[in-house]
This record gives sequence, structure tokens and C-alpha cells, in this order.
Amino acid sequence: MAEETWRELSDVIESAERDVLEQFLDDLTPDARTLAVSRLSDATRERLLETVDPEDAAEILEGLPESQVTDAFENMSAELAARIVEEMPSHHAADVVGELSDEAAEAIFSEMSPADAIDIRALSRYEDDEGGGLMVSEKLSYDSTTAVGDVVADLQGNADRYEDFDVQYVYVTDSAGRLEGVLYLRSLLLTPPWKPISEIMLPEPRYATDKSTVEELHALFDTISFNAVPVVDEHRHLLGVLRRSAVEERMAERSDRDYRLTQGIVGGEELRTMPLMLRARRRLSWLSVNVVLNVIAASVIAANEETLSQVIALAVFLPILSDMSGCSGNQAVAVTMRELSLGVVRPNEILRTALKEISVGAINGLCLGILVGCAAWAYSGTPWLGVVIGVALMLNTMLAVIIGGCVPLGLKRFGVDPALASGPLLTTVTDMCGFFLVLTFAGAVIDKLV
Amino acid sequence: MAEETWRELSDVIESAERDVLEQFLDDLTPDARTLAVSRLSDATRERLLETVDPEDAAEILEGLPESQVTDAFENMSAELAARIVEEMPSHHAADVVGELSDEAAEAIFSEMSPADAIDIRALSRYEDDEGGGLMVSEKLSYDSTTAVGDVVADLQGNADRYEDFDVQYVYVTDSAGRLEGVLYLRSLLLTPPWKPISEIMLPEPRYATDKSTVEELHALFDTISFNAVPVVDEHRHLLGVLRRSAVEERMAERSDRDYRLTQGIVGGEELRTMPLMLRARRRLSWLSVNVVLNVIAASVIAANEETLSQVIALAVFLPILSDMSGCSGNQAVAVTMRELSLGVVRPNEILRTALKEISVGAINGLCLGILVGCAAWAYSGTPWLGVVIGVALMLNTMLAVIIGGCVPLGLKRFGVDPALASGPLLTTVTDMCGFFLVLTFAGAVIDKLV
Repeated sequence: MAEETWRELSDVIESAERDVLEQFLDDLTPDARTLAVSRLSDATRERLLETVDPEDAAEILEGLPESQVTDAFENMSAELAARIVEEMPSHHAADVVGELSDEAAEAIFSEMSPADAIDIRALSRYEDDEGGGLMVSEKLSYDSTTAVGDVVADLQGNADRYEDFDVQYVYVTDSAGRLEGVLYLRSLLLTPPWKPISEIMLPEPRYATDKSTVEELHALFDTISFNAVPVVDEHRHLLGVLRRSAVEERMAERSDRDYRLTQGIVGGEELRTMPLMLRARRRLSWLSVNVVLNVIAASVIAANEETLSQVIALAVFLPILSDMSGCSGNQAVAVTMRELSLGVVRPNEILRTALKEISVGAINGLCLGILVGCAAWAYSGTPWLGVVIGVALMLNTMLAVIIGGCVPLGLKRFGVDPALASGPLLTTVTDMCGFFLVLTFAGAVIDKLV
Repeated sequence: MAEETWRELSDVIESAERDVLEQFLDDLTPDARTLAVSRLSDATRERLLETVDPEDAAEILEGLPESQVTDAFENMSAELAARIVEEMPSHHAADVVGELSDEAAEAIFSEMSPADAIDIRALSRYEDDEGGGLMVSEKLSYDSTTAVGDVVADLQGNADRYEDFDVQYVYVTDSAGRLEGVLYLRSLLLTPPWKPISEIMLPEPRYATDKSTVEELHALFDTISFNAVPVVDEHRHLLGVLRRSAVEERMAERSDRDYRLTQGIVGGEELRTMPLMLRARRRLSWLSVNVVLNVIAASVIAANEETLSQVIALAVFLPILSDMSGCSGNQAVAVTMRELSLGVVRPNEILRTALKEISVGAINGLCLGILVGCAAWAYSGTPWLGVVIGVALMLNTMLAVIIGGCVPLGLKRFGVDPALASGPLLTTVTDMCGFFLVLTFAGAVIDKLV
């Protein structure tokens, strides 16, 4: 069914009948449209964006994966790109332009109205996850001496323009543009027109700064019920408006990204519509690091080949030991990552985390050790093999949860992305230790095993 | 530092000086407050919630992990719980109450004002990720025959009550309560008071239904610029208002949950402040399933012990093969999970996904096979060992990416959570196949290896 829709859409685009195309798009549900447009070839997708209104094009692009949006913009004319960008809310526009090459971005700026270009250029200088990068610059603000009647007149006179602003609050500034207060639209309804707005504003409003991190912003919105706050610079100059939904959206993107990185999808998101070689190359970059780490870990087995050749049954349990320690350690990684994102642990609390993990590791290590130890005994008929495997697994489980719990904190302190590096670091160290423990213990009691 | 803050807070709570406590809390940043409150013992945290205003208590609870919120509510008096719940936005209140036992929830309802209790009870019947569970029931709506002047008078007369509603749009219904249109607050400013609102409303507004899924809602908001839409039942009766931020928040929660499940944190989120035995037991439930799967996979090695004892070098490469196939397969899982959440793949497109993965698997399998094959040759001095390991790894990589790409789709079709089950299923099958391939190939050319 999905198959048919995008082929039909492709045919409609090729037929170049604008009315038919618009009707076809209107008849699709939003998710059917996203699915169909995402499947088009790059060339057909560009043809589509050239055919429809810039406003519709902006809407279509909003649902698509980031990589397809970037590609589309890099390939269309700067003039069309500028028309489409002007139809987007400013923070989305800045995100899109920020992903383009400098030349492509400059070409688009030169085709935009100067005022819009200045806005978007300023926004695109911010990082994606600070206040400035998440805010929109469209805002309603008036000097505190303005009369209520003048504000109402301005709102009425510019109703068309402000329609797109989609803001719920009016901000009040001093003569230098510094934030002084906030005004509910409904307060304007209840006040005689000659009063200055300074008399009906709420003074000392909550605000964010352009340099606030997304964690700080998330914590801020947790404590207030407003759907938007003003954003100011270090001198309290009003810069824009930050919406709750922008912060939530960014948090969702971060979780998605963290999940992708832990599973080894690096260098940006992958879609199966992307070119084969790009997909293979990106995945391989991560896999080849893992191969090297695996070979290093396996060298511990190689160094103990003599023990192994005497007790071949050990070879059956080495992969089990490696996998189980990895599982236990990854659970601890996941708990730490979650605690970091909730803000209930700080990167310097390594000792506390280690202490909290030791006890869980001891309990689970004991249970797993007994379980796998019994399996080893049953399989080999030698109780000592069960002891060797069981004790090694128990110790290695304790080690794995301590490392798993603390590694993300350590990486974060050193500015390395814990989502990317925690897994490989963890499994390499636990594999090496696990193989070492099993083979050393076995070597020590070798006459009981053979 | 974090350590000190929560101990200080704990002391202030024990001293039972309400003013000092409120001042102390006011002086903390929101995230320092969340961190400190999350670290308190359960008893001290309950003491805190009993001491402060219900409004402040609601605010404090909003930042805390869900499990701590649930515990706090189950242990406080129903009367206090009711006061706090009444201060929360209705969809949060419904989420909280929905997590409690039926008796605890009923006790709280009986202490609430009947109107609020009816609202929250209705909301808590919905699933967390459908329109009804995400909407707030606080809404501004008027019959379409109402005059503009009467709406303004009502707004002015009830300004205090509506303040908490935090809604940007006014909805218009027919006499049976069915949605007819939407009204901008600012349109009220621009219209003579005797006109009926039906003349200035936007007819046929976009809406969600109480049964819409969170994916549908996310797609809907992607295509519109409003921050909220009305929610209706199957007969188009207006039920409430759905905010964009509620949908974004839910999507973020889902990503977090998916990530936790893939890493083996099941049965709800884990925090290191939770009781040791609960943490150990939850982690162990997942680990013990994995032990069994691992033993099944290792039985393939056991069945081929004879081959292994003749070529002991194989034992060095079995854990590498297992780990690398797992990595490759998990990359494919991550891509499918992402495509599912973006809505660019459907659960029935298993064939398309398999075809897209085969080619990536062939390229990466070839590269990894050559790399690890060379390592095996160099290590053993036997080129045939390199061929056995290399070819087995290549074939197993292709298999792993096909399984990894398709398993989440298959699980989704059968209603099993792909985040939970994809990983263990994948690694068990790829381990078994990988061990089988290596040991069978080695057995076939055994005279070249010894």
C-alpha cells in the first residue's frame, strides 16, 4: 500500500499538473504524505518542492527526516530555498540553514529579505541545544511607557503579520530593550486604553538566557505552567521567545540520538533510502573500531591457549561469559544515562555510583554465577569447572556493573559523548577481565579439571 | 556539593520550620531542587510534601522521576493527595492517579471536589499514549450562538479561574456540544460585541480524536503551526485540548523507555535511590532470560567440541564472531526502530527492509571478514583458518543485518514490543548461526587446519 502511494505520487509529479498534485497531497493523511515523500527519488522530491507553493513546501519538509531536508535545500535554487525558509518558523529555519554548507547558506541569505536574513543568521550561530538555538525571534514586545490603547491598535493593525507569530504573551521592555515584564493578551481586554502597560504587566517574569542549556530549560519548564518564556542575553536584552514544545522536541531528538549512538549508528541518522555506500561506510566506521577492540580482548584467550587446549570445555563458556558481562554492564550504563538526563546524578559522583552498583553486582553476580556454574558442572561432569566458571562470572559481573555505572560519568566529565563510547569501552574491558579470570582460575586448578 | 544540599534540605525538613524550608527551596535552582529532593529518604520526602503548600508540592513533584511520585502519593493521606492533585494540570493529574492502585485512586477521588474527580477519572481511563490520555480537559468553549460581548464578559468575570487554563484558543460548539469552529482570542478584540461568535470563528478546524495514537498526533502537529488542537470523540463532541508540548513530551518518554528496554532495564525505570533488592530483581529477570538463550547458543559449540579440540585457535575467534555479528545486527535494529518512529517504514515492509540490508551486509561483511580473516591467518600461520573465519563472519554479518532489520517489524506486527525483544532474539540466532558456520567450515577442511 505504501509502495503504491509513493509510485502514484511520483507519477503525478512527473505529469507536472500542479492542481492534480495539490489535490493528491491534500487527500493524503499527514503520515501517508511523509512516508510517500520520503520514498521519492531525490530528483523527484526536488521537482515536487519546486512545483508546490513555498508555504506547502515548508509544511512538507517539516515532517521529513533531517538528512532529506538538508539534501533538498542543497540541490534547489537559492531563490526557491529562500522563499521556503521564509515560510518556516525562525528556529526551524535556523536549524535547516545551520546544517547547510557556508556557501549554500550565504546564497540563501542573499535571496532573503534583509530583516529575515539578519534574524536567521543570528539564530543559526547558536548551538542546537542552547536557549538561542531553540528560541524563535518572532515576538510581540512594547516599550513599558506604551499605552494599552496603542498596543491594541498595533495588534489590530498588524493582525495579519502577527497571525504567524503564534505567541500567547506580550513582553514589555525598557527603552534599551531590556525585559521588564510580561502581559497577558487578556489583560488588554480588561484595562482602560489610556493606562501605560507598565501598570498591568507582571513584573520580574521568569526568563531563559540565550546560553541556557537544554537541561536547564527543561528543568525551568518543569517548574512553571507557561507554554513559553522570554529569552534574554547577558544584559537582559530581549532576544526572542522560547516555547515549551521546542525544548520537549529537542529532548526527544537527544534521546533518539543517544539510542542510535549506543547501537553503533554514527555520523548522523541512517535511512534506508540513502545511498548504499554511505550507509555501509558509516556503519563500518564503528564496526572497525569494534573489531580492533575485540581482537585486543581475544588476545587474552590466545595468551592462555595452553590451558584452553587442556580443558576444551572452557571454550564453550567463554562466549557466554563475554555476553553476560556485557548485558549486566549495559544495564548499569542505561541507568546512569537515564539518571544523567533526569538530573538526579552529577558527573562527579563516581564513588556514590560505584558503591550503589557493587551491591547489585554482588547479588546478580552470585545468582548468575550459580546458574552458569551449575550448567558448566552438568555439561562437563567436573564440579571444579563449575566453580571456575561461576566464580569468574560473579566477579566479572560486579566489575561490569561498576564500570558500566561509572564510565558514562567519567566520559561526560572529559567531554566525550557517553552514548557513543560507553558500550565499546565497557565490553572490551569486561571481556579482557572475564577471559583473564576464567583462564587464570582454570590454570590454577588445572589438575582438578583434566 | 550535591551531597551537601540534600543533607541540608533533610535537616531543614526535620527542623519543621515551614518558613525556613520555603526560603531554602526558593533559593535552589530547579535542577538543584530536583536533585536534592530525589535523594531524600521516602519518609523525609513525604514530610516535605506535607509541610509545603499543595501548590508548591505539585510543582516539586512535577520534576521528580515517576516512580518517586507514585511512592509519595501511595504513602500520603488521601486528603493531602487530593489537594495536591487538584493543583496539577489535568493530564498530569490523570497520569499520576492512573499509576496508583485502584483503592488509593478511589480514596483520592472521594476527597476531591466532585467535578474535578469526574474529570480526572474520565482522563485516567485513557491509555497514556492516545489523544484522550494526553489532552487536558480544561478548555474554553461557547455555544456558536453566543454573542462576542457575552464571551468577553465571561472571560473578564472568570479571569481568575481561566488563568490556570493556559489556553490560547476558544472553541465553538453547537447546542449538542459538537465542535464547530475555533476562535482566536485576538479576534474578540476586533469585533463588535453584538455579533455571534459563529461569524468570526474559523470553521472546520483541525482536530484530534480521543483515540488518535501518539504517532498520528505527532504527524498532525508536524503539518500545522498551532500549539494546541481540540480533541473530540467519535461523534465530534468536544472533550478537551491537546497541546503540542504534551505530544512532544510523550515522544521523549517513549524514546527513553525504548532505550532502557534495549539495554535490559525492564519493569519500569531504575534509580539508584530505589531499594537494592528491587533493583537487583528487575535486572536479574532480564539477565536470566539471556543466560538461557546464551546456553542454547553455546550448545552449538559443545556439539562441535571435537573440531574445536583439534584446532584450538578457533576458540580465540568465537567470541569475536559473536560480538561482531551482534554489533552489525544491532545497527540494523536501530535503523528500523528509527524509521518506525519517523513513520517512513511500515511493519509489513519486511521484504523491502531485507533487500535494503542484504547489500549493506555484503559490503560490511566482506570488509570485516577480510580484516578478521587476516588476523586469524596471522595468529595461526594457517591461511585456511583465515578463510574459515573470514567467510563465516561475512555470511553471518549478512544474516545479522537482515534479522536485525526485520525482527522489529515482525515483532511489531505480532504486538510484541520491539525495543524489549529484538536484541536477545537477534543475538541468540546470530550466535547459533555464527558458531555453526565456523565449526562446520572448520570440520570440512579439518585436514588443512591441523
